[in-house]
Amino acid sequence: MASTTAAAIQSSQPPILPKDFSAKQPETIRLYPLSNYTFGTKETQPEEDPSVVARLKRLEEHYELHGMRRTCEGVLVCHEHNHPHVLMLQIANAFFKLPGDYLPFEEDEIEGFKKRLNERLAPVGSQFSGEGVNEDWEIGDTLAQWWRPNFETFMYPFLPGHVTRPKECKKLYFITLPKKKVLSVPKNMKLLAVPLFELYDNTARYGPQLSAIPHLLSRYNFEFVDENDNVVAVTPGTPLPPDQIPRTKVLAGGDDGQDTGMTDVGEGENGTGGQ
Amino acid sequence: MASTTAAAIQSSQPPILPKDFSAKQPETIRLYPLSNYTFGTKETQPEEDPSVVARLKRLEEHYELHGMRRTCEGVLVCHEHNHPHVLMLQIANAFFKLPGDYLPFEEDEIEGFKKRLNERLAPVGSQFSGEGVNEDWEIGDTLAQWWRPNFETFMYPFLPGHVTRPKECKKLYFITLPKKKVLSVPKNMKLLAVPLFELYDNTARYGPQLSAIPHLLSRYNFEFVDENDNVVAVTPGTPLPPDQIPRTKVLAGGDDGQDTGMTDVGEGENGTGGQ
Repeated sequence: MASTTAAAIQSSQPPILPKDFSAKQPETIRLYPLSNYTFGTKETQPEEDPSVVARLKRLEEHYELHGMRRTCEGVLVCHEHNHPHVLMLQIANAFFKLPGDYLPFEEDEIEGFKKRLNERLAPVGSQFSGEGVNEDWEIGDTLAQWWRPNFETFMYPFLPGHVTRPKECKKLYFITLPKKKVLSVPKNMKLLAVPLFELYDNTARYGPQLSAIPHLLSRYNFEFVDENDNVVAVTPGTPLPPDQIPRTKVLAGGDDGQDTGMTDVGEGENGTGGQ
Repeated sequence: MASTTAAAIQSSQPPILPKDFSAKQPETIRLYPLSNYTFGTKETQPEEDPSVVARLKRLEEHYELHGMRRTCEGVLVCHEHNHPHVLMLQIANAFFKLPGDYLPFEEDEIEGFKKRLNERLAPVGSQFSGEGVNEDWEIGDTLAQWWRPNFETFMYPFLPGHVTRPKECKKLYFITLPKKKVLSVPKNMKLLAVPLFELYDNTARYGPQLSAIPHLLSRYNFEFVDENDNVVAVTPGTPLPPDQIPRTKVLAGGDDGQDTGMTDVGEGENGTGGQ
């Protein structure tokens, strides 16, 4: 339960360690540093629907023909200074979303989800080569399910008692990032690495779904490795010098080159749904 | 993915079912109706510490001698009208808590936790007999871990980056309630069955830990059985007549016999911690 591994510890007064406290937990997950990943940009991917109303209208058409819509999103996690960071997209400086999208009705769950992730994040052409370019996605545990009871913007992490025919189910999966990976982001989006403490208790900025991610990840124990694959820290964490306090980083994308990431989210599904 | 099972469905127009959407999820959990459980009361269990300050002082002493404190709490789930309800205690009409407590430093995790659950909820003497009286606790998955970085009231579902020596770790476990069980509650506490939708987005009343439970449970699929063990509904739910909208129920305890459960929580660890 030490936060700093023996090799990395610098204090001559190590803490008293309590008895084991890791029963009934999933396997410890290894997180690689953000610097292990390579980021590029690719063609703009315009929104499929011009407005929220249009999106709900199309959902209604989908429901009539094919039943409940299935939507898949990935929680991709790496670390900076031994604190977990979640990769997410920011669209038009307006709202945040996880990589993923709804599945065409005839697609299988995991295969369809991987296609959707590749559309959004896989590198194109011969811009990159080497390790991590053609890496397959490793889809981990389901972290959460959100239900849309009506053709409206709000969703809940349970189905309200009187609803038997939900219109959409959105699943969040843990994506175990491999040691190296190349990610290409549509030019009209930014890819951000957002630390857990920034998401926590921040529904106003990130909406109810994204701000709940720290809760969803809290049952995992993590081990943090450096660029040379040495484990330097394990849950619960390691000390940071004052100049290394983690902040949200823009990794790629954003045509204006400006980080307006601090604008409060007033619109968009993640900003208003279910509040 | 139907919410109403074939045997229980009453509509002649069943919904269109999409392709499978249950990959990477834990096993479906069976929930029994609240009416399967028997509730009684037992001797008053006064708080160990007269104040929050005294509790933090004692935590400090524990840390000096034994290192990080380990605290275990159980999320006990049953259903009413096919909506999941969480059993929790209300103390002195003031704040809510889950059954459980800190472990003595020398105790093993699961065995120690079961003892703590029995202290709080097991029936005493020969008041009851039959099925469910001596039922052992079945401790399920870890749902969350909360860390206390300092000798202060706030806790987080992650360890802030600069903290290497947390003072307490509190784990929440799913407790799979058996088909029948007898629970005895200290006279100075109430036992409540709180529906998920009442906890959701209700930090003001339940605090950050309890109001996050709907998120923590959202990855599970449930099947709901009636008193005769027939599965009548599966995730996501079944319809309710208007007169069956679930509400928080007082099950046992509360010397004054008054349901002041609607008082907003202004104090106590769960009401203020980590906000």
